[in-house]
Formats: sequence, C-alpha cells, structure tokens
Amino acid sequence: MSILSTDDDLARFALAPGFSCAATACGLKKNGALDLALVWSEASCAAAGVFTTNRVQAAPVRLDRETLVAAAGRVRGVIANAGCANAVTGERGDEDARHMQATAAAAIGARPGEMLVLSTGVIGVFLDRARLDPGIAALRSPAASRAPGDAARAITTTDTRPKIASARARLPGGTALVAGFAKGAGMIHPGMATMLAVVTTDARAEPATLDRALRLAVERSFNRISVDGDMSTNDTVLVLASGASGAVVDGAGEADFVAALAEVCASLAKQIARDGEGATRLVELRVTGAASERQAHRVGDAIACSPLVKTAIHGNDPNWGRILAAAGYSGEAVEPGRVRLWFGEGDALQLLERGLPAPFDKARASDLLREDPTILRLDLGLGDASAVLWTCDFSADYVRINADYTT
Amino acid sequence: MSILSTDDDLARFALAPGFSCAATACGLKKNGALDLALVWSEASCAAAGVFTTNRVQAAPVRLDRETLVAAAGRVRGVIANAGCANAVTGERGDEDARHMQATAAAAIGARPGEMLVLSTGVIGVFLDRARLDPGIAALRSPAASRAPGDAARAITTTDTRPKIASARARLPGGTALVAGFAKGAGMIHPGMATMLAVVTTDARAEPATLDRALRLAVERSFNRISVDGDMSTNDTVLVLASGASGAVVDGAGEADFVAALAEVCASLAKQIARDGEGATRLVELRVTGAASERQAHRVGDAIACSPLVKTAIHGNDPNWGRILAAAGYSGEAVEPGRVRLWFGEGDALQLLERGLPAPFDKARASDLLREDPTILRLDLGLGDASAVLWTCDFSADYVRINADYTT
Repeated sequence: MSILSTDDDLARFALAPGFSCAATACGLKKNGALDLALVWSEASCAAAGVFTTNRVQAAPVRLDRETLVAAAGRVRGVIANAGCANAVTGERGDEDARHMQATAAAAIGARPGEMLVLSTGVIGVFLDRARLDPGIAALRSPAASRAPGDAARAITTTDTRPKIASARARLPGGTALVAGFAKGAGMIHPGMATMLAVVTTDARAEPATLDRALRLAVERSFNRISVDGDMSTNDTVLVLASGASGAVVDGAGEADFVAALAEVCASLAKQIARDGEGATRLVELRVTGAASERQAHRVGDAIACSPLVKTAIHGNDPNWGRILAAAGYSGEAVEPGRVRLWFGEGDALQLLERGLPAPFDKARASDLLREDPTILRLDLGLGDASAVLWTCDFSADYVRINADYTT
Repeated sequence: MSILSTDDDLARFALAPGFSCAATACGLKKNGALDLALVWSEASCAAAGVFTTNRVQAAPVRLDRETLVAAAGRVRGVIANAGCANAVTGERGDEDARHMQATAAAAIGARPGEMLVLSTGVIGVFLDRARLDPGIAALRSPAASRAPGDAARAITTTDTRPKIASARARLPGGTALVAGFAKGAGMIHPGMATMLAVVTTDARAEPATLDRALRLAVERSFNRISVDGDMSTNDTVLVLASGASGAVVDGAGEADFVAALAEVCASLAKQIARDGEGATRLVELRVTGAASERQAHRVGDAIACSPLVKTAIHGNDPNWGRILAAAGYSGEAVEPGRVRLWFGEGDALQLLERGLPAPFDKARASDLLREDPTILRLDLGLGDASAVLWTCDFSADYVRINADYTT
C-alpha cells in the first residue's frame, strides 16, 4: 500500500481475532463525523501503554496509567473519542474520564477498572456527557458501524486519512496478527508516544512482556517522528493481546513479536508524519556515522524540527546549509569538517563532502526533494551508530490549518 | 518610535562620536541593493563580541574570536557584508575572511588584526572576491553613502526594515551615547547572540569591562528572542567603544552603562522579533512566578518556539491549551494545577486560574491577540523569578519566504 491508506485498505482492515469494535457519531465533532470508538474483547486480555511525557497530562492519560497498574495489565477494552481532549479540565475532567470509563465498561459487561480511555481534540473544554452517554449506548446498537476502518476514522481530528497497519509474527504455537490504528496530524513530536494508537494482537503475552515489547517498538517508531515539535498532553499508544491465536510471546519468540509490533508502529508513525498538517510529502531522514544512536537521534531531531529545513523541502529548494546549521545546534558534538550529505534513495546526489560544498546539479537536487518520501542522509563521520527519523514538509497550509483550529 | 524604524528614524540615526561609516552595493546581493558596510574609528577602540554557540561556525565568526583575543580587545573597525554567509566554506572560507579583513583594514590604514568581519546570507557559497574587493575600495570613495542608516540597511537580508537603536548613559566624566544597528529576520533563536549587531559607544571602557557589560546586556535581550527556533552559524553581536565622550565605564558607572547597552540591545532584539520572516506582530511573553529565572526562560522558550502557539496568535485564536501544552514539555517541573494565564497589558483578560479554564469573552481574547505587541503572561505559581521573551506570530508568508530563499 502507498504511504497513506486508501478506501480499499480501510475496507479490508481487520483487528486481531478476539477483538470487536464499534464506531458512531455522538456530536462531539461539530461536523457530525464519527467521533466515538470502542474496541473490546469478550475475555480479559493483556494490555500495555506508553504515554506522553508532557508535564500537562490529560485526564484520560492519568486514568489509564492508574488503571493499568491497578488491573495488573489485564483489561477488556478501550473507549476513544475525538472532538474533546479532556485536558486541563481539573477534577471535573478526572470525574468525566472515570464516568466515560464506567459507562463504556458497563456497555460490554466489564468492570470500570477493565476499560482504558482515550480522548483527543481541543484542550480546556469539558467532555459533554449529554452527547457522550447516548453515544456509548449507541455503540452497542445495530446502528453502530462494526467496521474497524470506521473505528480508525472515529479517532481522527485534522488527519486527512485514517492510519491503519498490520503485520504477522510466527511464534511458538502459531502465527499472530498485529493490527492497529492511530491518529496524528498536529502536536506531533518525538519524546514519547506521540499521538493516539490502539494496537491489537491475538498473540498470548504476559502484561510485563507486552510492556517491554511496546517500549522497544515505540522507541524506533513513534519516538522518531516530528510534525511541528509540539508534544501533546494526550499522546498514548496502547497494545492489547487477546491470545486467541494460541501463538505465545516468550523467550525465543519475543524478538519476532517485537519485530511485527515495531513494523506496525513504524507504519503508523510514517503515516502520521506523511499526513502532518498541511504536509505534501514524507521526509525520511537517515543520520549515519554517529558516535551513538542517541547522538544520531538528537541530530536528526534538530533537523526534523527545523522550520527552515522543512519549508526549504516544501519549496524543493536544495538549501542544505539549513540542514547543517540545524545539526550544529542540536547540542551534539558535530564536527562540521567531517559531515557529508546526500539527497535521494541510494545516496543519489551528494551535496556536502567532509564539510565542504560538493558541486551539484540544482535541478536534480530539486527533483529529489519533490519525491515522496524525500530521502536525506547525513553522515556525521564520528562512528558507526545511526537512526532513521520521519517528518514532513512545512507548507503554508500548516499555518492556515492552525491559525483557526478552535474558531 | 514605533517598534520598527521609520525612514525618519533612519535619516536621524547617528553612530556614537568617534565612529565613521560607509555603505555601498558591490553585487553580493543579486538585486543590486546595499550589501557592504564599514564602521571605523580613527583611533584604536575597545571591542567585545558575543558569538553563536552553533557547532557549525562561519569563517568570520572563527576569525573574530581569534582577532579579539590576539588584539586584546583593541580594534579599529568592522567590515560587514550581506548576500553570502561565508559559512561551511572550509579553509577557502577562512582565507576569504582573512582577505576581507586585510583589505578593509588597509582601506582605513589599520593592521589586519585590528578589523572585525561580519557576513550574512546563504550558507555554503564562497565569497566572491571579484565583487568584494572593488566594493571595499568603493567604501572610501565619495560615491559611498556615509549615512549610518545605510550601513544598517546594507547588512539586512530578508528584513523588511533596518534595525537601529540609541540610548544615553550618565557616567563619571560625562554622558555617553550607545548607538547600534542589527539585522535579523530568519534563523533567530535564543541561546547566544542571535543575529548580526554592531553597537558603538563613545564611552571609555577597558575591553574586559566592555565584554562583561555586553554579556549581561545580551543575556536579557538577544538571548530572549525567537523567530523560528533555528540558530544561525553566523550570529554575532559586537560593541566598540571609542572613548570620545570622556565618560568612563568603571566602578559606580558600570551599572548605568550596562542599562543603556541593554536598552539598545533589547530594542534591537524586539525589532528583530517584530520583523521576523512573515510576522505581523511582536509577541511579548512574560513568564512570572517561576522558581528561577532559568526556569522562566526555558518555559518561555518552549512557548516562543511552538508553531502551534504562533499560528494560533496569527489567527487571533485564543487556543490557550497550546500555551499550556508547550509549558508542559519545556523540560521544567511545571505544575499544571498552579498555572495562571492572562492576555493583554495589565493582565487585561484571565484565561486560566490555577490549572482550570476561566470563562472568558472569546471576542475580547481575539482582540487582545490582534494587538501589536501581543502581550501574554503565564504565572507558574512556583516562586518569584520571571523572564520576558519576545517572539512573533507565524504566518503563511513565513513559509512562502523560506520555501524559496536560494532559488
């Protein structure tokens, strides 16, 4: 499939066996679009989560952290809404999140402590229970959509497309499916889980194993994307394992499961970056020759967050000095005289050779910046470590979208 | 005067007594505008400089650091060009910077080691000596402009207006004038001197005293502005003291001199932020109630660099959740339940009271965001320290300007 999902992809999309879902429109989004989704399992399943490191944490983020600890990583489902972030809403927000948790749990015959909660949308607005409660009731009615693609659609905000991804892992006892969906678009920045994502699997795993696998997968996927350098109050990635396949994650199989989970997370992360607000292309930034992976990540992060770099890419402008300048202020001990830079897949065009401009064909460089994904490789000449990061170009539409999000 | 200089302001602008200047167009700017300026003193003067902390440093930055040390802070002048940054140009760039230094020094009968060099413009392009050399010769011809406003104009790049500022300090022995000019517009970010600035004074000061005064002034002016979070390879602030007034900077008078120097630097810094690429207004961000000045600065920096905050201000959109979210990811131990937020001069409108949304008039909030400067105060409720930062709104024009800077 192309970077972003097509209608066909969405129609074919399935959660892992053991999971059901429903989606409806309850009026939290003003335009009447789908805005409420429930994913659940008939039996208790293992769960793990990674959450924003922002000091300002939304009520559902605080609640999910508590719930996962109190339930020892065993839950029945996830209720998610778009249209209201339930962030910076104080104690009333905490009560609203607990109400949402209990109402959704009751709808599937579970205890409140077996339900996780996700919210996304405008900050500082209270959740409207008069819309939410009938919405949750409607999720179990025949009128609700049972298509997983619609659950993916329901959690989107300024996303132009829902994000979905699947992979399989061969494990002792059978083959497991890993299938998840996510939303992104604005306030995307590496540093922790960077948006909302729900990943399901029919593998059988202990909560502690699932937690370890998720942290490894997130570190090289969601933590490697940036749209605008802003980290949200609500970022959450959840994984739920039903065990329905009989495939077991432990010992020898764990690495294969992590690989499949990382593949799904990386695909969702790239879709989020590609669909960044106003973006016209995905940018894949490969930082090589670093003294450590952390160094490669930090240098890449500075470049991926630079408005000057991202606007130059948008304009197909091979102004590579901005890339080098961003590397220079990354806080890492970059040595300008060792740095090399290429544009394009397979290092198609070199622009910088050990700190000196390499004469290059400007038209060819512009063409390489037009490609989707745009590929850049920066070699620091300091060691053997590397990191791949994803971002998007920065267009005038980003400004238009964000200049009047609440109004 | 208004935030940005008018033609009248420029016509009236004078350097401190003891200094002369000249400006010409030598063709480094493709459009034929003024692009070369020389400021000099007939006698040796004291000098100090503050430079970018970017690991990638332009050739003139490296040269000026060496020159100030070798000359023990005694120089005769500054030669500055726009249109070419002479950055990422390797040894040839170093030779070009030394050539520029020697040529300009010869033009005023000084030794090479008595001349400082500033360059700004595109990175990775070699200085064109065939244009530069006749340009420097022309600076001493009657055809060159001797107007200080034109020297200020010559160092601009995407600035819409030259930046100039003056202040007086009463010191033992007389009154000293502090008068300087600067350029900014893109790649503006706190962290060190953040653009090019030349400040002259007729006070008499030892180089060490001047250096101390400059660092104090820069910390609360140029280090408090952000346009796009990008830190340049060429950022430099220079101050030159002729001593022509007989006013002496030492002991009791030092604080008064620092105050005048800080006033000039702050005015130039605000003009740079106001004239950020595509900006339509200055944003003054007051962070109060912090546990330390460093904390206030870091929280303010996260807000001032947030594209989501800056686009919301551009759209007159009182989406204050973005301000709080940025404070939350600043890396400082912000406690959301203690934070308060106001818009407008004199805390005209409160939006947040100890972590909870305060009901407010949206139309009034939008109007306050339209003001120039836009004033925001965030109180952290953690202590008594504070910091004032300046940034600008983020418009679609920023993207347009930067999407094709070199092409």
